[in-house]
Amino acid sequence: MSSMSEALPKVLERIDADLDKSLERLFAFLRLQSVSTDPAYADQCKQTAQFVAKDLESLGLDAQVRPTQGHPVVVAKSKAGAANGGPRVLFYGHYDVQPVDPLGEWKHPPFEPRIEDAGGGRKIIVARGACDDKGQLMTFVEACRAFKAVTGKLPLDISVMIEGEEECGSKNLFPFVAANAAELKRDLALVCDTGMWDAKTPSVTTSLRGLVYEEVTVTAADRDLHSGLFGGAAQNPVRVLAKIIAAIHDENGRITIPGFYDGVAELPADIKADLAALNLTAEDFLGQVGLKIPSGEKDRLVIELISTRPACDVNGIVGGYTGEGAKTVIAAQAKAKISFRLVGEQNPEKIRDAFRQFVRERIPADCKVSFENFGCAPAIQLPFDSPAITKARQALQEEWGKKAVTVGMGGSIPIVGDFKRLLGMDTLMVGFALDDDRVHSPNEKYDLTSFHKGTRSWARILAALAS
Amino acid sequence: MSSMSEALPKVLERIDADLDKSLERLFAFLRLQSVSTDPAYADQCKQTAQFVAKDLESLGLDAQVRPTQGHPVVVAKSKAGAANGGPRVLFYGHYDVQPVDPLGEWKHPPFEPRIEDAGGGRKIIVARGACDDKGQLMTFVEACRAFKAVTGKLPLDISVMIEGEEECGSKNLFPFVAANAAELKRDLALVCDTGMWDAKTPSVTTSLRGLVYEEVTVTAADRDLHSGLFGGAAQNPVRVLAKIIAAIHDENGRITIPGFYDGVAELPADIKADLAALNLTAEDFLGQVGLKIPSGEKDRLVIELISTRPACDVNGIVGGYTGEGAKTVIAAQAKAKISFRLVGEQNPEKIRDAFRQFVRERIPADCKVSFENFGCAPAIQLPFDSPAITKARQALQEEWGKKAVTVGMGGSIPIVGDFKRLLGMDTLMVGFALDDDRVHSPNEKYDLTSFHKGTRSWARILAALAS
Repeated sequence: MSSMSEALPKVLERIDADLDKSLERLFAFLRLQSVSTDPAYADQCKQTAQFVAKDLESLGLDAQVRPTQGHPVVVAKSKAGAANGGPRVLFYGHYDVQPVDPLGEWKHPPFEPRIEDAGGGRKIIVARGACDDKGQLMTFVEACRAFKAVTGKLPLDISVMIEGEEECGSKNLFPFVAANAAELKRDLALVCDTGMWDAKTPSVTTSLRGLVYEEVTVTAADRDLHSGLFGGAAQNPVRVLAKIIAAIHDENGRITIPGFYDGVAELPADIKADLAALNLTAEDFLGQVGLKIPSGEKDRLVIELISTRPACDVNGIVGGYTGEGAKTVIAAQAKAKISFRLVGEQNPEKIRDAFRQFVRERIPADCKVSFENFGCAPAIQLPFDSPAITKARQALQEEWGKKAVTVGMGGSIPIVGDFKRLLGMDTLMVGFALDDDRVHSPNEKYDLTSFHKGTRSWARILAALAS
Repeated sequence: MSSMSEALPKVLERIDADLDKSLERLFAFLRLQSVSTDPAYADQCKQTAQFVAKDLESLGLDAQVRPTQGHPVVVAKSKAGAANGGPRVLFYGHYDVQPVDPLGEWKHPPFEPRIEDAGGGRKIIVARGACDDKGQLMTFVEACRAFKAVTGKLPLDISVMIEGEEECGSKNLFPFVAANAAELKRDLALVCDTGMWDAKTPSVTTSLRGLVYEEVTVTAADRDLHSGLFGGAAQNPVRVLAKIIAAIHDENGRITIPGFYDGVAELPADIKADLAALNLTAEDFLGQVGLKIPSGEKDRLVIELISTRPACDVNGIVGGYTGEGAKTVIAAQAKAKISFRLVGEQNPEKIRDAFRQFVRERIPADCKVSFENFGCAPAIQLPFDSPAITKARQALQEEWGKKAVTVGMGGSIPIVGDFKRLLGMDTLMVGFALDDDRVHSPNEKYDLTSFHKGTRSWARILAALAS
């Protein structure tokens, strides 16, 4: 048994005793309005990066706020001789958060974090970023802090990279990682941006869907038109866009873009049987958000639809008059944000190009279309029997008293692919989000249990990795 | 020759001499921000009604601002004995204007009217409402003012009704007219809310398309969802709405809603030949707004598409994230404003109901839909050989030096149908708008020539009606 494993009971005690103070630190972090996708918040993003760097310094790391073309990246490293042995790890997280709109649906201001009683003895932390990713990344930081307090040093040689553009496509992170490959390459990456299977069952994520995110702008006339005078003759860009969106899926929910399914393999029968055995019904999964009938490909398990099958969604659309009442206008322009979730070997650049071609073929001769890309990342499949994953599953089982499952996740964490591709580094993905955390929605929350036992889980995982 | 015809040359001189002052009066009117569809402008609408009433008092009319459930209606009548004989007329116009968004596309503030030089010796009045309908209705008012100045009285027994909700469906005007039928019924209605054939050719409008305007709201999940976690399984209301919009038209541009074309007759061959002889090419009509290919029913003349055929347009759509950058959200709700232009005997209530049925049939079982109506008016066809129309065409020809054409108009003026139905009263529709007036768009304008010669045209028409 290593010295870290010997220290673990005291470290866990320290985490319990320090919970209130760790929440104070998290709340200070949550008050910072680091909305990365909206340029109006650029200063707040910078301040948040500085806040993170200062906090990492307090763990005894050398921390720097490093500039990029967009929001800065915080990089921190163990000082020479300050850490114990074992594998060298790079922890990745992001300090940026999603926009808060529609603001009117928040019960309390999104950047004024609070603990609420959710009934049944359950307490929740409510704020934008409470879960994604401020709350999650602080479970790792607080575990490190407890080790430092108890043992005087960190349990491993730890580097940390916290970016500020995850919620808007991490455009500047990939060149940053490429440019600093030697500095950032470690034995293993750690990420805390994923979820539990359910509130009682921990999980390690071994696959992630990729992402292609496009904004499409269709322009027809050179000005807005009166629909009484021009209706029936002039092209309407909202109708053009609606027709394109409608054409993306066939009546069986399959995506019709040529070549889209290239690289999508059917699951091996045994894996599919494992998934079926989880017995996740549409009512269980969709019932929590007021739905019950899966909208995607027919004859698929819900868990396939959300984790191992690709998907396409319209994330936003706007055109014409959207205020109260009536305006008889034909808009000059309409826009949609359309994204694809990728799996297996799907090539994001090829899919982006095929999508653009698909759209262009459907644009009337006297209309125009333009595209802007906000993300292009392949799907990830990790080996689920690596020593790190095995150790993490064991550590999680000790904390939660229940076997940790290995799962695929529907969302993407693009950097995980880059770690593999650019740095040859595998990633251990462990997180404590729950399906009802309202991530990206109003009233985002993180269970106090996720935060507290998440911190304890990381302490156990770090001790296990060090052993 | 009547005394009014004898006075006409002096009245026309007076109009010419008074042009600058008449523009000052118009500008004061244009500065009032009477946007009827947005409740935030309710006070400004009331002030505008008061402004109109005061101005009509200055013509020697008894004017009242009459309340409705919405914005008030201004009603004014000739004082007993103050007018000459001849037919009793009711002039109708509207003091409300369209919203100004997108505000950023206005070169100057929309409620700061100005005269601009448009090149080639052409001067234009630029402001929201410069044409629709403040500039247009003032051509009638200024003609009356000149008669009053020259002859001491108005040329006919004139009543005036100026409403404040034309741009949002005239919901409260119809009950108002029904409730005050005896007071408002005259021999003939006059309306100045239509256009010229082109900048040199005056026209009398003898048909108008009707309107059904619906707002459709589709709701899926009970909150916004993360598209990574739920994409592929959860219904997306933007996609649901896009699919419905795409289904409204078939590949030939025909509307697929069952029963939609009931009551739409083919034009008689001779009328169609007359329309064809106008030789309005798609390039001519659409070229002015940067388009060239008609979007509507195939194998139809452009002039049919915009005047004698029904149409459907999406006037606005919004759902999900519409700010800058990327947000991976599946919206809980999406909305579209969808309107229909009706012709012939199409029944607006039946079409509204058939549309709602069409939409409901396409709503997935666990989604919801709701509707709000902002307009329901049938199309109008007037006899184009009535004495009033014949006199008006002659008067217009004298002013413009070119034969006045009789045309159908694509937009609707719902009150014209109610005048016929509720009051048994025909309407003479003459207006001076041009196709490039940017009505309902940023930088709306009205040619100074439209205003000046429009005023002179009304003086001639009033004299002709009095004779």
